[in-house]
Amino acid sequence: MPTEFSPEIEITAFAWVPPFARGQVRDLRVRWALEEIGLPYRTRLLGGERPADYFEEQPWGQVPAFREGEVRLFESGAIVLHIGEKDERLLPREAPARGRAICWLIAALNSVEPSLGALVEIDLFAGDAAWAKLARPGKVTQLAGRLAPLETRMAQRDWLEDRFTVGDLMMIAVLRSLTDQRLREAHPALAAYIARGEARPAFQRALAAQLADFIPDPL
Amino acid sequence: MPTEFSPEIEITAFAWVPPFARGQVRDLRVRWALEEIGLPYRTRLLGGERPADYFEEQPWGQVPAFREGEVRLFESGAIVLHIGEKDERLLPREAPARGRAICWLIAALNSVEPSLGALVEIDLFAGDAAWAKLARPGKVTQLAGRLAPLETRMAQRDWLEDRFTVGDLMMIAVLRSLTDQRLREAHPALAAYIARGEARPAFQRALAAQLADFIPDPL
Repeated sequence: MPTEFSPEIEITAFAWVPPFARGQVRDLRVRWALEEIGLPYRTRLLGGERPADYFEEQPWGQVPAFREGEVRLFESGAIVLHIGEKDERLLPREAPARGRAICWLIAALNSVEPSLGALVEIDLFAGDAAWAKLARPGKVTQLAGRLAPLETRMAQRDWLEDRFTVGDLMMIAVLRSLTDQRLREAHPALAAYIARGEARPAFQRALAAQLADFIPDPL
Repeated sequence: MPTEFSPEIEITAFAWVPPFARGQVRDLRVRWALEEIGLPYRTRLLGGERPADYFEEQPWGQVPAFREGEVRLFESGAIVLHIGEKDERLLPREAPARGRAICWLIAALNSVEPSLGALVEIDLFAGDAAWAKLARPGKVTQLAGRLAPLETRMAQRDWLEDRFTVGDLMMIAVLRSLTDQRLREAHPALAAYIARGEARPAFQRALAAQLADFIPDPL
């Protein structure tokens, strides 16, 4: 929950993005984690032109970057892990369950998001490029191979392990960018899993806060 | 160091891969982390056909999977983090430095490896596919954008932060798959950084151990 006080935690976010990106920018992941454990934060909004020193905070000029006292972080995965360390509701304390939560967080970032991002790139950014049309079927097949074991797993359970953790938070945040309708329909258990995550009050608060921070479109 | 005793830690690896993949398979990252802190491990080698129950351990049938008592992990990033928790030589204890090490580990996996993997896919796996030829220049540009801030940073330092951590281990392991000679030459500080990592005795032991585990090629 963003507040008018001055919370110790600050995250960066964008002041404006095109409509298709709203609700997808990666500060949402961090806002969601903070909302799950009720930690207040403030946002520092960045315009299209980043201040030169922002690249000290985030090597590629992206969001979010995170500050909490001496702790300066970038990469939504690292920030969500850091927040998870604060509260066992996000990250179990016992080594076996803790380890599993971290496996799924990393799996979302390294085994699912690259394939999903390749399809998103084609569908949202490649326009009519010839390579994109030729490459798309192969990218769909690769992504389907990534989704298949998750679909099987989630047909039998509500969360990736016994209860919601940072692993689910990150996996759902990644899977939400699956806009291909045919793939969504082919993976009903994943669609239900995404909906289950999005129904969490903390997710709803995080989403509303991200959307509220965008300045209006120019007329 | 693999031993003839029965160490508690077990990792999976492949019994055979084609020559171009030797020294690149991801169990190397885990072996390297274990070697850095002198922890013995045993390997369980998998043939081309995975046992059906292996997909319980690794959803996509890949390597490595990791066992240590009740702890069962997959994803090289999660395993390396788990090993890092055991020893501050890999993962500093104070929150600011610990956080930075984890940022770089995640950056390697989520901000660098996807772009690098896209180029590796084209150069090693796409053969003469028409999409690959058309897509390659754009993929090189994307990857160069990912490498540029790292090149600038590493021109001024030996490791990503004050000293070697799991962040360097993962970043170097990822960057090693950059086979495009022109891109290597365009990033001399990164080439030197990779060489600095590969010169570490623990890396050399890990690499030798991976290579020694492969069965000979069929005649």
